[in-house]
Amino acid sequence: MKHQDLINACRGDWAAYTQHEFVQQLAQGTLAQPSYLHYLKQDFLFLKQYARAYALAIYKARTLADMRKALPSVHALLDSEIAHHVNYCGNWGLTEADLEAEDEDFGTVAYTRYVLDAGMQGDLVDLYAALAPCSIGYAEIGRNLIADSSTNRQDNPFDSWIALYGGDEFQHGVALGTAHIDQLLADIDINSQRGRELVKVFRTATRMEIAFWQQGLDVLSS
Amino acid sequence: MKHQDLINACRGDWAAYTQHEFVQQLAQGTLAQPSYLHYLKQDFLFLKQYARAYALAIYKARTLADMRKALPSVHALLDSEIAHHVNYCGNWGLTEADLEAEDEDFGTVAYTRYVLDAGMQGDLVDLYAALAPCSIGYAEIGRNLIADSSTNRQDNPFDSWIALYGGDEFQHGVALGTAHIDQLLADIDINSQRGRELVKVFRTATRMEIAFWQQGLDVLSS
Amino acid sequence: MKHQDLINACRGDWAAYTQHEFVQQLAQGTLAQPSYLHYLKQDFLFLKQYARAYALAIYKARTLADMRKALPSVHALLDSEIAHHVNYCGNWGLTEADLEAEDEDFGTVAYTRYVLDAGMQGDLVDLYAALAPCSIGYAEIGRNLIADSSTNRQDNPFDSWIALYGGDEFQHGVALGTAHIDQLLADIDINSQRGRELVKVFRTATRMEIAFWQQGLDVLSS
Amino acid sequence: MKHQDLINACRGDWAAYTQHEFVQQLAQGTLAQPSYLHYLKQDFLFLKQYARAYALAIYKARTLADMRKALPSVHALLDSEIAHHVNYCGNWGLTEADLEAEDEDFGTVAYTRYVLDAGMQGDLVDLYAALAPCSIGYAEIGRNLIADSSTNRQDNPFDSWIALYGGDEFQHGVALGTAHIDQLLADIDINSQRGRELVKVFRTATRMEIAFWQQGLDVLSS
Repeated sequence: MKHQDLINACRGDWAAYTQHEFVQQLAQGTLAQPSYLHYLKQDFLFLKQYARAYALAIYKARTLADMRKALPSVHALLDSEIAHHVNYCGNWGLTEADLEAEDEDFGTVAYTRYVLDAGMQGDLVDLYAALAPCSIGYAEIGRNLIADSSTNRQDNPFDSWIALYGGDEFQHGVALGTAHIDQLLADIDINSQRGRELVKVFRTATRMEIAFWQQGLDVLSS
Repeated sequence: MKHQDLINACRGDWAAYTQHEFVQQLAQGTLAQPSYLHYLKQDFLFLKQYARAYALAIYKARTLADMRKALPSVHALLDSEIAHHVNYCGNWGLTEADLEAEDEDFGTVAYTRYVLDAGMQGDLVDLYAALAPCSIGYAEIGRNLIADSSTNRQDNPFDSWIALYGGDEFQHGVALGTAHIDQLLADIDINSQRGRELVKVFRTATRMEIAFWQQGLDVLSS
Repeated sequence: MKHQDLINACRGDWAAYTQHEFVQQLAQGTLAQPSYLHYLKQDFLFLKQYARAYALAIYKARTLADMRKALPSVHALLDSEIAHHVNYCGNWGLTEADLEAEDEDFGTVAYTRYVLDAGMQGDLVDLYAALAPCSIGYAEIGRNLIADSSTNRQDNPFDSWIALYGGDEFQHGVALGTAHIDQLLADIDINSQRGRELVKVFRTATRMEIAFWQQGLDVLSS
Repeated sequence: MKHQDLINACRGDWAAYTQHEFVQQLAQGTLAQPSYLHYLKQDFLFLKQYARAYALAIYKARTLADMRKALPSVHALLDSEIAHHVNYCGNWGLTEADLEAEDEDFGTVAYTRYVLDAGMQGDLVDLYAALAPCSIGYAEIGRNLIADSSTNRQDNPFDSWIALYGGDEFQHGVALGTAHIDQLLADIDINSQRGRELVKVFRTATRMEIAFWQQGLDVLSS
C-alpha cells in the first residue's frame, strides 16, 4: 500500500482534521489572537516531543540508511523549527525557557504521547504511520490554502503560517518523507492484519490532530 | 519525600480531579446514563493500557522483589477488573470484543499514553509517579464518598461504583501500592532536581485524569 | 512462514547450539560440576531477564488476547522456574539473594540483552523471534536426549535436567508457544524484507545461545 | 558523585579494560593484523548501535538543553566516525555495505545491547553511566599511550589509532561529555540506593568492554 491508502481508509477523520474550523479561520484571518498564541505555545511543546519521536526513529531503524534518513528531522526540529516559534512568541515577550515551562494541554499530550507510544510498541513502520498525519496533513493544508482563491492572503495576520506550510521548502521536505513512507509500506497489503493495524495507528493519530486544533479554539471558552 | 508531598505540590489540580463534577453527579446519582456508559467504555480501554503500564513496571524493575510487586496488578487488570466492566456493559449487549473495538477518546489517549511514555522515558519511579494519581485518587474519592453523609447511597444507580472503590478490598490494595511508592520515594528530596521532575510527572498525570472525567460529561454535548 | 523456516534458514548455527559440547557432556553425565553450577547461576540471572522480556511482550501486544498469552510465562518464570534453580543451588548453600547478586557473565548479557533490544526495537513478532531459540531449542534438546539411546540416564547427576526439559509439561508448554509463534508468522513471506529481518533476529539469538553454553565450559579454563 | 567515583568503585575491572593485552599489543605494534581487522569490523557494528544509544539519549532527555547535547554525537557517529572505519577497511576491499552485513560477535552484542537496555530500563543517567566506560576509557587509553615513553610510535602500523584517540579533538570531545555526566551525577550520593545502581551499570559496561577487546585476540584461535 501507499500513504494515500491510509488517508482513504479514514476519509471522514482526515477531512475533520485538514478542514478544521481552526484552519478555516486561519485562512480567513479571523482566528482570535489568543487562539493563535495558545496554538503556537502548544505547537512549541509539540515540536519538542516530535523531536523525541524522530530520535526514536533513529533508535528503531535497522539500517544505517534509515538511521540517516531520520537525522535531519531531529536536527531541523531542535534547531530551525523551534526557533521559528520562539521568534514569533518573542512578540509577546516570551523566551524559549518560558515556552518550555508552559503546561502541555490535553490535545498536545494526547497526540504526542500517542505517537511516541505507537512507535515504541510497534516497529519503525508504526512510528512513521503515527507521524504521517502531521507532516502529510500540514502539507496538504498549506497546499490547499495557497491554491484556494478564497484564502485571504492580503490582510491576514497569519499569512506567515500559510506561506511557511504552503511554501516550496516545506512541501519539498514532506514529499521526500512521504516517498520514504511509501517505500516502508510497499510490501504491506492494506487488507492484511498488519495493514489494518497501520490503518488504526494512522487514523488514531489523525483523530488526535483534530483535538490539537480544537484546543486552540477552546481556549476562548475556558 | 512521600506520595503526600506529590499531592501537596499540586493541590489545585488534585482537587479539580478528585472533586470533579463527574464525581459529584456520580455521588448524587444524577449523572446521565450516556455519560456513565461512555465512561465505562473508555475506562475499559484505559484498563487495557494500564495493564501494559504495569507490565512495563516489571520490565523496568531492577530486582526480583520489584518485579513480583507489579505482577498481581497485571493479573488483576487483565482478569477481574476488565471482567467487571465487561459484565456491566453486558447490560447494553456489549461484549468484550465490542468494547475492545471502540475508539479511544482524547482523554483516554492523553492519560494512558502519558503514563506509558513517562515510564519509558524515565525509570521505575517516574512510571509509578505517573500511575499514582489513578490508584491513590480513586481510593481517596471512594473513601470520601463513603464518609460523606450527603452521598446518595439508597437510590443511586451508580452505587456499585462507590461500593467498589470505597470498599475494603480496593482500599487495601491501594494502601499496599502506596506503601511501595513511599518506599521508592524515600531517598528523594522533593526540592532536588529529581524531586521536581517527579512532581511534574505526577501533576501532569493528575491533569490528564481531569480530562478523563470531563470527556464523560462532554459526550452529552457532542 | 512457520518457525521451522526460521530454523531451516540457519541450520549450521542451530546445530552448533542444540548439539553443543555442553549438551553432549550433560547427556553423558561427564560435565564438570563447576561448569554445571556456573551454568545454573547464569541461567538464574538469565531467567530474571527472560521474565522482563515476557513482560515486554505484554507491553508490546496490541490485543487483550495476545496480552493474556504472555502473562503465564511471566508468572511461571518469576515463580516456579526461578524456584527450581534456587532449590538446586541451595545444595551449595546459595540463596536467591546470593544468586541475584552474582555478576552476569558475557554470554548471559549477550543473549538476554539482545532479546530485550530486538523486541524493543522491533514489534511483538521480533520479540518472539528472539525468544524462540530458547524455548524451541530447549524442547528439541530435551526431546532428542530422551529419544537417544546413547543418553546416560541411569548414572547421570544431571538427569533431572533431562527429565525437566524432555518431560511432558515443558514439551506441552513449548508446543503451545510455538503454535502462537506460527500464528504470528503466518502472514509473513520468508523471502520478503520482513521475513529476512526475522531470520536475522532468530539467527543472532541462536548464535548467542551458543555463547551461553560455551561460557559454562570456559569457566574451567578461566 | 562524579564520574571518577564510578571508576574508583570498580578499579580492578577498569584496569583490566584500559590496560588489556589488546591495548598493549596495539601500543607496541605487535598486534596481529587479523585481530585488528576483526576489531575494526566489530567496532563499525558497535558504532552503529552506539548511534542508536545516543538517539535514545535524545528520546530520554527531559529538556531541550539535554536533547541538544546528545545530537552532535549521533551526527558524528553516523557520519565521520563510521567513515573513518570504512576508509580503513577499504584497504581490504570492504565497503560500508560489506561491513554492515557482517555478523556481530558475542562481545559486540554483549556491550551494545547492555548499554541500550540499561538506558531503556533506567533513565537518562543510567544510559550515560552505561555509555561512559567507552568514551572515558578510550580517552584514558589514548592519553596513556601518548604519555608512555615505551609506546612504539615510529614503526607502528596502528599508530593512526593512537593518534586518533590520544589526539586533541577526541580528548576535547570526551572532556565536554564527561563534564555533562558529572553534572547529571552531581545530586546523587554514591552510597545511596541510586548511587549503587549506577555503579553496577558502569561496572557491568566496563566488564563488557573487556569482552570486546578479548574477542579481537580470540579470533586467532577460532
